[in-house]
Amino acid sequence: MQKPYDLIIIGGSAAATAAGIYAARRKLNFKIITKEFGGEVATSGEIDNYPGVPDTDGIALSGAFRKHLEKYGAEIEEGVEVADISKKGDLFCISAKKDGQPKAAADKLKKGMEDGKKCDYEAKAIIVTTGVHPRELNVPGEKEFRGKGVTYCTTCDGPLFGGKITATIGGGNSALESAIMMSGIASKVYVINKNPGFKGDAVLIDKVTKDPKITVIYEAGTKEITGDKFVTGLKYQDKEGKVQDLKLDGILVHIGMVPNSELVKELEKNDFGEIKVDKFCKTNIPGLFAAGDVTDVPYKQIGVAVGQGITAVLSSIDYINKLSVKQ
Amino acid sequence: MQKPYDLIIIGGSAAATAAGIYAARRKLNFKIITKEFGGEVATSGEIDNYPGVPDTDGIALSGAFRKHLEKYGAEIEEGVEVADISKKGDLFCISAKKDGQPKAAADKLKKGMEDGKKCDYEAKAIIVTTGVHPRELNVPGEKEFRGKGVTYCTTCDGPLFGGKITATIGGGNSALESAIMMSGIASKVYVINKNPGFKGDAVLIDKVTKDPKITVIYEAGTKEITGDKFVTGLKYQDKEGKVQDLKLDGILVHIGMVPNSELVKELEKNDFGEIKVDKFCKTNIPGLFAAGDVTDVPYKQIGVAVGQGITAVLSSIDYINKLSVKQ
Repeated sequence: MQKPYDLIIIGGSAAATAAGIYAARRKLNFKIITKEFGGEVATSGEIDNYPGVPDTDGIALSGAFRKHLEKYGAEIEEGVEVADISKKGDLFCISAKKDGQPKAAADKLKKGMEDGKKCDYEAKAIIVTTGVHPRELNVPGEKEFRGKGVTYCTTCDGPLFGGKITATIGGGNSALESAIMMSGIASKVYVINKNPGFKGDAVLIDKVTKDPKITVIYEAGTKEITGDKFVTGLKYQDKEGKVQDLKLDGILVHIGMVPNSELVKELEKNDFGEIKVDKFCKTNIPGLFAAGDVTDVPYKQIGVAVGQGITAVLSSIDYINKLSVKQ
Repeated sequence: MQKPYDLIIIGGSAAATAAGIYAARRKLNFKIITKEFGGEVATSGEIDNYPGVPDTDGIALSGAFRKHLEKYGAEIEEGVEVADISKKGDLFCISAKKDGQPKAAADKLKKGMEDGKKCDYEAKAIIVTTGVHPRELNVPGEKEFRGKGVTYCTTCDGPLFGGKITATIGGGNSALESAIMMSGIASKVYVINKNPGFKGDAVLIDKVTKDPKITVIYEAGTKEITGDKFVTGLKYQDKEGKVQDLKLDGILVHIGMVPNSELVKELEKNDFGEIKVDKFCKTNIPGLFAAGDVTDVPYKQIGVAVGQGITAVLSSIDYINKLSVKQ
């Protein structure tokens, strides 16, 4: 049977990168497993708040993260979705799907397992950096027109709307960044904000509210997305309670994020489903650490995720060093 | 009287930079005050573990931090040493020395103060990022030859020992980095390690132990630094208990760091004098936050300090927003 890993890092964004660089420098036997590398960093537009790296963007920074990991020969396995994590003695057992199928390796490993349980990876410690996914509006038409004019990633899909009319839905930094990006691409940009103001960086709010191409509609609740083969508009309720129609070619939804924290039921989470951690990135399960956007630290920032990733891996090394696992 | 600042950031390294960038983006009325900008980052040699920025060094990264801050017009006041911090109602009062003298501005402000107390800065919130300073050996000759062959900063002073014989004292990453740097400069490099092994990154340990120019002396306790006008050697006790002489031109001391945490007596600290913080970088004093190496997070890393700096400033904004200070 394969020797257990010291550490498995689940996820592929800023926190995973930071943890991976330190794990490699410490020569741990470790692996990064992730659905896809890049995560929330890769889907960011302009980035100007990662200290020391001004004027970058999500694709460039995510590329730099990957290169930095590869410099140290860190193994990154993509296409992997964790199905279950359990613990037996001091070892974690991770079963996973690869590209939608139970991981092939699982079957081979199976024979070697006493209880016949599928462990695709065994590890002394785990760091969960699974991040978040975009929150949905939950209005009629949303599912129907997803990928047909409705997107949750302006950086990824914004360029498809060159010369068209778009609406960004949301009131935070992510929505502001979306609107700024679309102003350079679309012919006209609406922002549908359900609140009377924005909650975000003043520099971004300034840019959006002073841009003649951008019209902000405040206190507007999106009710329905309309279209035929493709999005043609949306219906919203204005502040007087009247339903209004807006003709659109594209809708960019930026109304917040939901943590990807379902993979271990025994983990303590807060009301938002975020994994509770302490300042050492420890969770309630010894040997299982968490870092980045998936945790209950409310500041979802690349620099914060990096700091947590480093903290988590150094905590995990302290933990591993204290273990006496028979190998 | 001058309007109080929203925020004063004390310190000038990674955590201060991160906090400053975010404060500027949020358009806070804030200032960075520090003895000198750069801190521990600037005195680092090669840096290869700040995620996304491989193959850099302390001077380059510290320069990039400063540029990033200046891009946002952040005010950095150097030459300032904080003498005292007190709190009156919801406002902090900071009195300071500038270039060794009581800050000139203090006298002007004095008249405006009800109780005649010198407040050089008033602020709703403070972030302490004062970092650490090098620990001393406390052996005879150390004080005498400081700056005459004895240094605590290889990056700063290492280049002075071209073609000479040096000893680095210590057993952690900082000592390893010092030895690696000196191997490229000196004719012969000793490492005096009081332990039987190193505690640091495997990549660095490999480099040092495989370098033919470097001789590591394990289980050696430095007893005395000798010299005339300038360092000529050191005496150490070997593992058999015998005192040995080593002829040297330079001694680079890297035996750990002491937190610069004396500025507020009321702050809760741990046994090492590090300021206790929670995962939001809150201290026991409401409105006073701490970030970076000065805190009790044991991982003294640039990326961790950056994450804490961002966390501290976002926590401080939450705190300020909840205040109702009469202005």
